[in-house]
Amino acid sequence: MDVIGHLINGRRSTEATRTQVVFNPAIGEVTKEVSIAPKETVEEAIAAAQAAYTEWRDTPAMKRARIMYRFKALLEEHSDRICELIGAEHGKICHDAAGELQRGIENVEYACGAPELLKGEHTKNVGPNIDAWSEFQPLGVVAGITPFNFPAMVPLWMFPMAIVCGNTFVLKPSERDPSSTMFIAELLHEAGLPAGVFNVVNGDKVAVDTLLEDKRVKAVSFVGSTPIAEYIYSTAAANGKRCQALGGAKNHAIVMPDADMDNVVNQLLGAAFGSSGERCMALSVAVAVGQRAGDELIEKMKAAMESLKVGECSDKTNDFGPLITKEHKDKVVGYINSAEEQGAAVIVDGRNPTVPGYENGYFVGATLIDNVTKDMTSYEEEIFGPVLQVVRVDTMEEAMQLINDHEYGNGTCIFTRDGEAARYFSDKIEVGMVGINVPLPVPVSYHSFGGWKRSLFGDLHAYGPDAVRFYTKRKTITQRWPSAGVREGKTFSFPS
Amino acid sequence: MDVIGHLINGRRSTEATRTQVVFNPAIGEVTKEVSIAPKETVEEAIAAAQAAYTEWRDTPAMKRARIMYRFKALLEEHSDRICELIGAEHGKICHDAAGELQRGIENVEYACGAPELLKGEHTKNVGPNIDAWSEFQPLGVVAGITPFNFPAMVPLWMFPMAIVCGNTFVLKPSERDPSSTMFIAELLHEAGLPAGVFNVVNGDKVAVDTLLEDKRVKAVSFVGSTPIAEYIYSTAAANGKRCQALGGAKNHAIVMPDADMDNVVNQLLGAAFGSSGERCMALSVAVAVGQRAGDELIEKMKAAMESLKVGECSDKTNDFGPLITKEHKDKVVGYINSAEEQGAAVIVDGRNPTVPGYENGYFVGATLIDNVTKDMTSYEEEIFGPVLQVVRVDTMEEAMQLINDHEYGNGTCIFTRDGEAARYFSDKIEVGMVGINVPLPVPVSYHSFGGWKRSLFGDLHAYGPDAVRFYTKRKTITQRWPSAGVREGKTFSFPS
Amino acid sequence: MDVIGHLINGRRSTEATRTQVVFNPAIGEVTKEVSIAPKETVEEAIAAAQAAYTEWRDTPAMKRARIMYRFKALLEEHSDRICELIGAEHGKICHDAAGELQRGIENVEYACGAPELLKGEHTKNVGPNIDAWSEFQPLGVVAGITPFNFPAMVPLWMFPMAIVCGNTFVLKPSERDPSSTMFIAELLHEAGLPAGVFNVVNGDKVAVDTLLEDKRVKAVSFVGSTPIAEYIYSTAAANGKRCQALGGAKNHAIVMPDADMDNVVNQLLGAAFGSSGERCMALSVAVAVGQRAGDELIEKMKAAMESLKVGECSDKTNDFGPLITKEHKDKVVGYINSAEEQGAAVIVDGRNPTVPGYENGYFVGATLIDNVTKDMTSYEEEIFGPVLQVVRVDTMEEAMQLINDHEYGNGTCIFTRDGEAARYFSDKIEVGMVGINVPLPVPVSYHSFGGWKRSLFGDLHAYGPDAVRFYTKRKTITQRWPSAGVREGKTFSFPS
Amino acid sequence: MDVIGHLINGRRSTEATRTQVVFNPAIGEVTKEVSIAPKETVEEAIAAAQAAYTEWRDTPAMKRARIMYRFKALLEEHSDRICELIGAEHGKICHDAAGELQRGIENVEYACGAPELLKGEHTKNVGPNIDAWSEFQPLGVVAGITPFNFPAMVPLWMFPMAIVCGNTFVLKPSERDPSSTMFIAELLHEAGLPAGVFNVVNGDKVAVDTLLEDKRVKAVSFVGSTPIAEYIYSTAAANGKRCQALGGAKNHAIVMPDADMDNVVNQLLGAAFGSSGERCMALSVAVAVGQRAGDELIEKMKAAMESLKVGECSDKTNDFGPLITKEHKDKVVGYINSAEEQGAAVIVDGRNPTVPGYENGYFVGATLIDNVTKDMTSYEEEIFGPVLQVVRVDTMEEAMQLINDHEYGNGTCIFTRDGEAARYFSDKIEVGMVGINVPLPVPVSYHSFGGWKRSLFGDLHAYGPDAVRFYTKRKTITQRWPSAGVREGKTFSFPS
Repeated sequence: MDVIGHLINGRRSTEATRTQVVFNPAIGEVTKEVSIAPKETVEEAIAAAQAAYTEWRDTPAMKRARIMYRFKALLEEHSDRICELIGAEHGKICHDAAGELQRGIENVEYACGAPELLKGEHTKNVGPNIDAWSEFQPLGVVAGITPFNFPAMVPLWMFPMAIVCGNTFVLKPSERDPSSTMFIAELLHEAGLPAGVFNVVNGDKVAVDTLLEDKRVKAVSFVGSTPIAEYIYSTAAANGKRCQALGGAKNHAIVMPDADMDNVVNQLLGAAFGSSGERCMALSVAVAVGQRAGDELIEKMKAAMESLKVGECSDKTNDFGPLITKEHKDKVVGYINSAEEQGAAVIVDGRNPTVPGYENGYFVGATLIDNVTKDMTSYEEEIFGPVLQVVRVDTMEEAMQLINDHEYGNGTCIFTRDGEAARYFSDKIEVGMVGINVPLPVPVSYHSFGGWKRSLFGDLHAYGPDAVRFYTKRKTITQRWPSAGVREGKTFSFPS
Repeated sequence: MDVIGHLINGRRSTEATRTQVVFNPAIGEVTKEVSIAPKETVEEAIAAAQAAYTEWRDTPAMKRARIMYRFKALLEEHSDRICELIGAEHGKICHDAAGELQRGIENVEYACGAPELLKGEHTKNVGPNIDAWSEFQPLGVVAGITPFNFPAMVPLWMFPMAIVCGNTFVLKPSERDPSSTMFIAELLHEAGLPAGVFNVVNGDKVAVDTLLEDKRVKAVSFVGSTPIAEYIYSTAAANGKRCQALGGAKNHAIVMPDADMDNVVNQLLGAAFGSSGERCMALSVAVAVGQRAGDELIEKMKAAMESLKVGECSDKTNDFGPLITKEHKDKVVGYINSAEEQGAAVIVDGRNPTVPGYENGYFVGATLIDNVTKDMTSYEEEIFGPVLQVVRVDTMEEAMQLINDHEYGNGTCIFTRDGEAARYFSDKIEVGMVGINVPLPVPVSYHSFGGWKRSLFGDLHAYGPDAVRFYTKRKTITQRWPSAGVREGKTFSFPS
Repeated sequence: MDVIGHLINGRRSTEATRTQVVFNPAIGEVTKEVSIAPKETVEEAIAAAQAAYTEWRDTPAMKRARIMYRFKALLEEHSDRICELIGAEHGKICHDAAGELQRGIENVEYACGAPELLKGEHTKNVGPNIDAWSEFQPLGVVAGITPFNFPAMVPLWMFPMAIVCGNTFVLKPSERDPSSTMFIAELLHEAGLPAGVFNVVNGDKVAVDTLLEDKRVKAVSFVGSTPIAEYIYSTAAANGKRCQALGGAKNHAIVMPDADMDNVVNQLLGAAFGSSGERCMALSVAVAVGQRAGDELIEKMKAAMESLKVGECSDKTNDFGPLITKEHKDKVVGYINSAEEQGAAVIVDGRNPTVPGYENGYFVGATLIDNVTKDMTSYEEEIFGPVLQVVRVDTMEEAMQLINDHEYGNGTCIFTRDGEAARYFSDKIEVGMVGINVPLPVPVSYHSFGGWKRSLFGDLHAYGPDAVRFYTKRKTITQRWPSAGVREGKTFSFPS
Repeated sequence: MDVIGHLINGRRSTEATRTQVVFNPAIGEVTKEVSIAPKETVEEAIAAAQAAYTEWRDTPAMKRARIMYRFKALLEEHSDRICELIGAEHGKICHDAAGELQRGIENVEYACGAPELLKGEHTKNVGPNIDAWSEFQPLGVVAGITPFNFPAMVPLWMFPMAIVCGNTFVLKPSERDPSSTMFIAELLHEAGLPAGVFNVVNGDKVAVDTLLEDKRVKAVSFVGSTPIAEYIYSTAAANGKRCQALGGAKNHAIVMPDADMDNVVNQLLGAAFGSSGERCMALSVAVAVGQRAGDELIEKMKAAMESLKVGECSDKTNDFGPLITKEHKDKVVGYINSAEEQGAAVIVDGRNPTVPGYENGYFVGATLIDNVTKDMTSYEEEIFGPVLQVVRVDTMEEAMQLINDHEYGNGTCIFTRDGEAARYFSDKIEVGMVGINVPLPVPVSYHSFGGWKRSLFGDLHAYGPDAVRFYTKRKTITQRWPSAGVREGKTFSFPS
């Protein structure tokens, strides 16, 4: 069986000692193994990154950026292969994987702008004949720890910007679906990246803790669940590092009475069920304002959901695929059960989907639950499955209160035609990424990604302009020249 | 005896329960007491800040800035009084206090630019007819914890920017010299700040821990020693907060053989002994490159130091004043003793200064130590006293290696006339604030202040452009408008 | 009779040779005279500005800005006096003059941010060990030529930013109402501006042409009518200067059927009739979309206009004052006559207002004209009087076509509640300053002011961020240091 | 014989009516003809650009930028062909053409950053619940008029940024060497640019005047000689357009006594003679400070120039090629003659170079002239040939005065090791692009290019950040939403 190894100092390697199985979730079978790095292997990767740092730091930003131009071209050229690799381990349908990859490529495009983005600020005459300027210098070795749900995109949020800023990088991707990540790492080397600048180690908590504790690692970017994000953030800080740790979400859409309901339903289908809801920006709660809006929403969603198709990744007619593991499937079903038990109405039930030929896959069908209330377990926690819950309220204020009371504050959306409602919502809602009639308000790559409250720990968001500051430290230089006599002299005997 | 209390919700109050003495260090006597806040008092301040937040957040930035314009004028008007208060508790000479205050006022000036600084980024057409923009929204209640050595300036690094960004603030100043801070806080209210937006609590570790643990406090800015900075940073992070914690320093000046030695000596006098060396940017180590430069430096410094005058704050002819406490004086003397014991040569000895009329003051005179080496205790640790140590090396590379090997990386300076030496130094030195012939390269208020290595924990520096990001969180809005028929219609019966 | 003179090199002076009368338009009488500078006097002002340039250019931006802080305080302190002076010569009511002054002061506030605004861009390593940065250096002597309708505000759009950028300035204000401008100029000197940095010459075309042709003048800012703007722009360019020339306007408001009509009427009253419509941002055309909106607009406007009160400047209960001259009053009345003759309906007729005690003043009352069409003279040309014309159309597209077909493109507004209509409008309308339910969308001082089409000639708008670029030229420095041996040496005999 | 035609609306076309010959300057023979567009053809190109505008303007910036990514790849792929085309008509050696192209490609890279560069500024709450933001909207049809000396690079300074900002473009390249420009235009279409967005017309003054006078053309970028630049600038302005017109140069290098003379000579060889000195940044005057520096410079330059090789473009061992025309060769020789006649010493004489096999080519060899003075014709005017003139002065001040007195202010350089001399020079010199030990301080593509004095007319420089402002106009939107009742309502009957 294939063993997916590491990529350290430009070379692939595998561990003899410890591996873990990798499933194809559509068929429910182990198809590969992945090396699980011990502390020594992670330290080897850090050492490689450290060794490559000085020369990479001194490479002009424009030259670093040129590798990103080539990397972008290679990602586009090999996109089909990357999507296959994603599908085989994660299960997402090829068109969805292509979307993920495209968003990732956009981050590479942003990294191409490094010469512009890394400009410091220069002041002539902070005092008489004294100048000062700031430089954005790289940190050294930085680390990324990324989740299973976007094996291509989330790493691409991190390492292109980190590297183009002059850092070297150690990535620990999810051990559930590392193949696309590894392939992308190889393309980056093909694009001309010097060995050691980008390293990938597969592993588990041992690898994570090594990255968090090693003094040579200066910064950690993390995307995953909130409890782990908190652990990462506090451990990195206790080790004196800077850290940005993105956690869980519970993204609500407010459906206003004046919304165009056909449009709402169209938007919600993809936003709630795309990628089986395994997205930190998945819209998992619709808050209908007013009886009529609620009734209409339920009715139209129910009808629209009939045509949704769940299945295997390579079939483009499928809308979404399996969940990542058997355990996760059971957990999602458990949330649906609990909602039902706690009094909600399961309007469309995806608990026992039929997927001919894939009977052992970890599938859950699109599920719609009505009359959910804020004290239900399924409302309080992140489900991370293809489940849309509908909460009914009487007013927009109630709807906003629900959102502001929730522990998460990642994304949210309002559906309305009304300028004032939209503006009030976007101003007062305690959520970092806001959509106005846009159900998945993931910022484009040249803005930054980040939630509020317990959805993000740290002060700088992921990718975009914030990434420049996260992956650099400012050096401020103040300069005054005393005269050496060269300028004033008339007779020059210098330097005899 | 006067009891210095708190300023909470626009009102002064004192604690009945617990106080601590405040000395005048020039005479070595207790002159006041200061309230030490219990947890409840700190929570009261946080509650006041929380209550004031919503209205303050919704006040347009230009209106918030206008209070800063008035505050600046009041600080200038009352500068003599502020300097007296600083002198009476800290001991620094009035001209030095005036300099401190001026740097603080410059931060108020920067805060006046809030409307410009808080501009978000707007993109038309991130997709067809979809727009996106970012806003810099305030965090809520934020806290500052500040040291004794700059009771006016360091608080002014923090709260003007925090407040003008829309946050409300709880400051815990040093309990050793809080009077000038309290007076400044009152001027801010006189300038028109609504009650509750800015609160000051005096206290000790109880107050600090309350600020670190209270969920309503969203961010913490700290300036102090490195062990405490580490504690603050890791504790704030463990509580999910953002934090910037500035710690200690050991600032080296490299004296190159081509430097103008008279100029070097002039610069070093103020940079090493000003404010008795109780500055995190004090230049405490001079690294002379080459035998001749070292000899000349020692000779000229020795001569120049003869005219230095130590004494009481109100006498403008004094160059610097006492240390902050008896304990600290003993510690500084201990470092001088240890250097001598470990083989260094005390060239100018300030251990027993004569200050007529102030025999009980905590004075140490300007001290010059030659032949210091990197393994001496006095070299490894921050002395925070009027002691300049000279290390001798043969090459610029050796000098830079010394600096790069030290645990701190706050400020540094090179004295040279040579463009290439200066550029090489500023590029390769692992220090955040670099001076080229500028011995105290404290960035002006419109650049940011921050060291590297163990001199700063966090990813954003103090004041200047970084402060905008530290005291705000980004909200990114993505907007698409579906048609409501208003635009296209020809016959309008809407909304009959 | 008082003669208003010039302010050159910090000294007031008057011309013996030529003067022109200044009226109080509310009483229709000459109250002062103003000196009309011959070429020599203008050249004297230019020479003073040229002489003051080098030292002012080398004054650090922060020091230049500090004068602006004091200037702001003085403007606030003397605001009543400034408003009186405006009223006595221009005629605008004191509350309106106060509004004008406030907008002007906001430009001074923006100028206070010079240290931030003048930062250049620094790039380390454009190539290996080669750095580059840009500086925003001043131009030298620059000139401003300003109109009668905002004798305080429009000069304040120009000279604070020009001066704080390091330029010296010659202003030629309107000869109809120069007193407030002169007083403001004196306050700037009181604030600490060195003599010669800011000079004011009163005059006519002789002065204008001297400024346009003199080689020492590097840039010209102009606000006035379009024919003059064109002359200024082409003449300045023919003399090799940079120029921004702001001209006339015809600002339309689209009133959509879903607009809140009471709000519309409230907004239109001030926007159409404030300052007698003598504003380049006055809303002079309302385009009603749909029969019902048109009827309702006319009916409610007519009712609301009954309470409008025209009169003398010092009476706060007045809404607006006289026109600037007898000739201009006749011209405005002529436009109303022509509209009537060409078939429009004069609904409210202000041609013969009664202003007891001010029978000789140049008053025209608020006038409302319905059924105006695009081929009428009163529609094609700028009236610059208290006349609101209503055009009726069937669709929003028609309304927008009207606006896009007009030669001017200064300001415009849409009244609607609908997000999509607003976004479509703001995107497609060929106008530089757009209001959404904001009838006078004058940008705040930290954005820039400028129309499109024949309302502005040049590529940079007035005040705000564009002003920084207009009043500076970029210098780009590329730097590489060859080794002088200082850095590498071990044995230093240099510079024996 | 091949006729080089136009590229209008995506199609190549030629004129039947009028053509002009194109030479290969290395052999002195006509090798092609080029169509000379009459007014109608230029108007056709403008009409095509106008027709393509609306759709292109509405294409999201990111999509426009993606075409630039592909364009960059195509330029790199076809670089050899482009260099051949340049060589065959301009004569520059292939390595020099490759350098030119590379600088051009860097402007395409900068254009790839359009989504970042086009961000507007957004302010929440300019007043209570009023927001404002600025957009950078394209102008419409813009034109470029480019010179013979950089047929690839200078057009690439203009159209990538203009187009990526949303404008459509009409380019009139030099009629002397249009083939590489035409080929590059085709590659842009191959990259996916829609027809009509970029159009190239070949022609003469008829074409230029049509572009300057046609109302549909909103802006003109020009690079050429100063008299033409003045004509372009004033004519464009008289037609109400914005314009940037870059003219001639006389670039001086100051050689200080402390300079490393071997390095100076190495740098000067390329800077003075590269591309036969037909560069607006060519270093044509060396000002030696002090007798010894002058003598050493002459001696070492003379020796180094011996190895310079002049010849045909395809031979990589050649250093530079022929001049562009017979007339231009005669003019350059005439300048050398005049210098000799006026008393200068021709140290190395390139007037009669031997180029075996290319006896009819327009070659002038590298020429070095000593003892040039400021009143000589060859000093006052731009030679645009491979001629380095040496002026000798006693002090740095004298050297700077020479430069500041010259009518041009494009580029300049100082050779020194001294920080203070460099800083004084860069601050006080009246030149837009300054090199410190960098003889050709052409700003990288992410800074902007522009001279001062009579080297540039207009207020915005070419390419880089200034290009964003030149090719866009700001629209500022101010927005307030009145309530439509949707938000506040509890019972929703809307929109019944």
